[in-house]
Amino acid sequence: MNYGVVIKIVGYLLLVESALMIPALLVALYYNQSDIMAFIVSILITGIIGFIMSRSFQYKKGIKVKEGLAIVAFGWILVSFFGSLPFIISNSVPSWIDAFFETVSGFTTTGATIIDNVEILPKGILFWRSFTHWIGGMGILVFTIALLPILGVGGFQIFKVESPGPSPDRIAPKVRDTAKILYITYTVMTIVQIILLVLGRMSLYDAALHTFGTVGTGGFGIKNTSVGAYNSTYIHLVIGIFMALSGVNFALYYSLFRGKLKEVIRDEELRLYLGIIISAVILIALNINKTMYNNFGISLRDSFFQVSSIITTTGYTTVDFDQWPTFSRIILFLLMFIGGCAGSTAGGIKNIRILVLLKLVRREFSKIFHPRAIIPIKVGDKIVPNETVASINSFFMLYIIIFVLGTMLISLEGIDIESSASTVAATLGNIGPALGFAGPSKTYSQFSYASKLLLSLFMLLGRLELFTIIALFSPSIWKKEFLPKNM
Amino acid sequence: MNYGVVIKIVGYLLLVESALMIPALLVALYYNQSDIMAFIVSILITGIIGFIMSRSFQYKKGIKVKEGLAIVAFGWILVSFFGSLPFIISNSVPSWIDAFFETVSGFTTTGATIIDNVEILPKGILFWRSFTHWIGGMGILVFTIALLPILGVGGFQIFKVESPGPSPDRIAPKVRDTAKILYITYTVMTIVQIILLVLGRMSLYDAALHTFGTVGTGGFGIKNTSVGAYNSTYIHLVIGIFMALSGVNFALYYSLFRGKLKEVIRDEELRLYLGIIISAVILIALNINKTMYNNFGISLRDSFFQVSSIITTTGYTTVDFDQWPTFSRIILFLLMFIGGCAGSTAGGIKNIRILVLLKLVRREFSKIFHPRAIIPIKVGDKIVPNETVASINSFFMLYIIIFVLGTMLISLEGIDIESSASTVAATLGNIGPALGFAGPSKTYSQFSYASKLLLSLFMLLGRLELFTIIALFSPSIWKKEFLPKNM
Repeated sequence: MNYGVVIKIVGYLLLVESALMIPALLVALYYNQSDIMAFIVSILITGIIGFIMSRSFQYKKGIKVKEGLAIVAFGWILVSFFGSLPFIISNSVPSWIDAFFETVSGFTTTGATIIDNVEILPKGILFWRSFTHWIGGMGILVFTIALLPILGVGGFQIFKVESPGPSPDRIAPKVRDTAKILYITYTVMTIVQIILLVLGRMSLYDAALHTFGTVGTGGFGIKNTSVGAYNSTYIHLVIGIFMALSGVNFALYYSLFRGKLKEVIRDEELRLYLGIIISAVILIALNINKTMYNNFGISLRDSFFQVSSIITTTGYTTVDFDQWPTFSRIILFLLMFIGGCAGSTAGGIKNIRILVLLKLVRREFSKIFHPRAIIPIKVGDKIVPNETVASINSFFMLYIIIFVLGTMLISLEGIDIESSASTVAATLGNIGPALGFAGPSKTYSQFSYASKLLLSLFMLLGRLELFTIIALFSPSIWKKEFLPKNM
Repeated sequence: MNYGVVIKIVGYLLLVESALMIPALLVALYYNQSDIMAFIVSILITGIIGFIMSRSFQYKKGIKVKEGLAIVAFGWILVSFFGSLPFIISNSVPSWIDAFFETVSGFTTTGATIIDNVEILPKGILFWRSFTHWIGGMGILVFTIALLPILGVGGFQIFKVESPGPSPDRIAPKVRDTAKILYITYTVMTIVQIILLVLGRMSLYDAALHTFGTVGTGGFGIKNTSVGAYNSTYIHLVIGIFMALSGVNFALYYSLFRGKLKEVIRDEELRLYLGIIISAVILIALNINKTMYNNFGISLRDSFFQVSSIITTTGYTTVDFDQWPTFSRIILFLLMFIGGCAGSTAGGIKNIRILVLLKLVRREFSKIFHPRAIIPIKVGDKIVPNETVASINSFFMLYIIIFVLGTMLISLEGIDIESSASTVAATLGNIGPALGFAGPSKTYSQFSYASKLLLSLFMLLGRLELFTIIALFSPSIWKKEFLPKNM
């Protein structure tokens, strides 16, 4: 491992983070609340440390896989650490571990909170909290679309840029251009949603913060009852629809922009994603209408919002879905695993992987009747290479293993199976609210510090596609290498 | 599909079943209870129908995959149907669906019961109930060791007879010889366990019935508190150890018999299986000792019995493990999925599949650092072909899909998530007792008839390695073919 280049690049990330705290400082200044000093200090500390780190080593060209993994993992951890400074300094979250949890939850766009009464926080702090979602979402787009295919982690090869298959057409010939296009799409979506929410008579401040949480699929609420605090079907629908839109592969928006409607309609991952949403919305609406609501229109509205929120791993709520009957809760629990589409800001296993796994099962049936046939797995009209299928299988298996071990560890808090399992699913999938002990009407504040650190790890694991983090525990990554062999 | 050969062979199976009811009739005669007539009538009905079916079609050589699947599936269903006659005719289980559930549970060696007070049943009926486990276990040995590798279902190729890998050494050159060896092993184990239990002052009747449930990994208790009714650590240990032994690949006993100890010690599946048992026993013993027992010896004893019972998918209990803390219950719940070794009478996913899946995950990590390396998956010193790995992945995925859909459907009974999920896991894995609603101190009698039929389907699905049953829903299997093209 070439430690120099890792420290240098993480230093740059901290410099960027320091700059990204400035909007929150401006908000604090505008509202002239108690959090102004916290931001000034945080900006200075983060900026100075970032500057020192970025200058202390010579710049060297060429980053290998090892360094790439280390930069991503440590980058995310250190950015979360420094991002928690405003919470600590302003005394909004007095405990360091709580503040770290909250910031990891922000940057990983999870939205799990340890703050029991969010409405008393200063405006600047709340802005920064939601803004971490927006920043995180942007970081994830670069990470999953530009970086992961190069690292070859967990089958991400197949959605290299926009199209599945071994020889992808790229949106634009260079990664930098790709990133630019994604950022523009992300920004346009942000602006459109803010405008639509303001048109629904939400204040600009509330509209911006909810939009950060929506397009980043984060879900930090700024009211104790989340979006439920806004008694407006229009606002529920706007946020519900934009959550669903944020779970779509962003490359498809560029296809749409270029007029390639056919490409979008034929996208198999999108079809699966929409198919799951529609099925889940209808099944839950029927279930809650029969047992609780007795009004199919409202059942549909509430079912749609919660389904959209969970499958996109956002985590906003308009009702306490933990009160729903078992059948509906099981569906929501499953959606926590499925997650959004690849190339979106959503977490979870992702629909493209589910699609490939389902095709693998279908192929096995064909094989019973045609044992000698060689049947390739196709997504769209492209063959998914066997290696990629194996990567996806490994990813799925590892996801289950971490989920299971995590549930065992969290159960030591003395809570029931459903609460333990859903808490791990909700953090590993970057959703936020779970069932039971950490359900929508509760927070994560009751967990022990050990569990909070563990849950922070799950959020990072899920966000960084598992292998990125776990590979760091491999001894081979830690061997110090010497120049010039190293370069 | 050549219906003739299917009907003919299933007819033969019924003839065999009719003969296998005779021991139960003898027991009924010996105790001279109310169930004598029930057995005479059942033997006659089953025998006559079997005779007619076996004579109504010409014998034709050559069975193709389609016919093989149909024989296995319909054979199992019809044998269960006729096997339920003694329960119905003797009025021990008045409802047809309940009796069918109980008999499916018996032949699939599940051990889930709908009988609330088992102690009032006549001796002959109880004998038949436990004897279905013993018959089922034998049927499974032939099915998984002789038939499945030919059908190529779910990755069973890799444990063709005894050794994994593409070119298996056979125990004996012919399937018939293999079956014979397995039967001898099975019978020897049965006799030894009966003797050991009788030495522990159990009556011969009780000893035989508990042994049928143990070597078949079935688990029908003949007391309302299962093995807990015998207040003897010796009996708990004998049954506990024999359950664990019944979950081992039977081919290894033959290796042992031939003096090939090294082969047994090196068997990777056995090591994984024993490793999981030891870890689970220790973790649960520590957990229950701390929270409930306060006596490590007894904690170990009860932990061992329950772990051995669940991982081998037997289902006997000595305590109500549903009262144990969450951590212990989660471990037991996981063991329901893992199950025993391939080539045993146990159900579940099986250790060999888990082993291959774990190796797949480990390989993925190596690939991150050596992206161009081609690393084969090995079990022992043999390479597992990619196709087999894909089959195992499909099997795992299908297992999860059925588990998830099943849980959704069962939850419509209005029970909680833990009860729904564990009930499906306990039937699909052929265990028997679940958690919560169908926990060890309860029975399956409270479920609706619809759920009972569904749970019967899960027992069959699990027992017949999923694909066997689901392939029957493929339209291509139902096309009628005409001679001589067909042969």
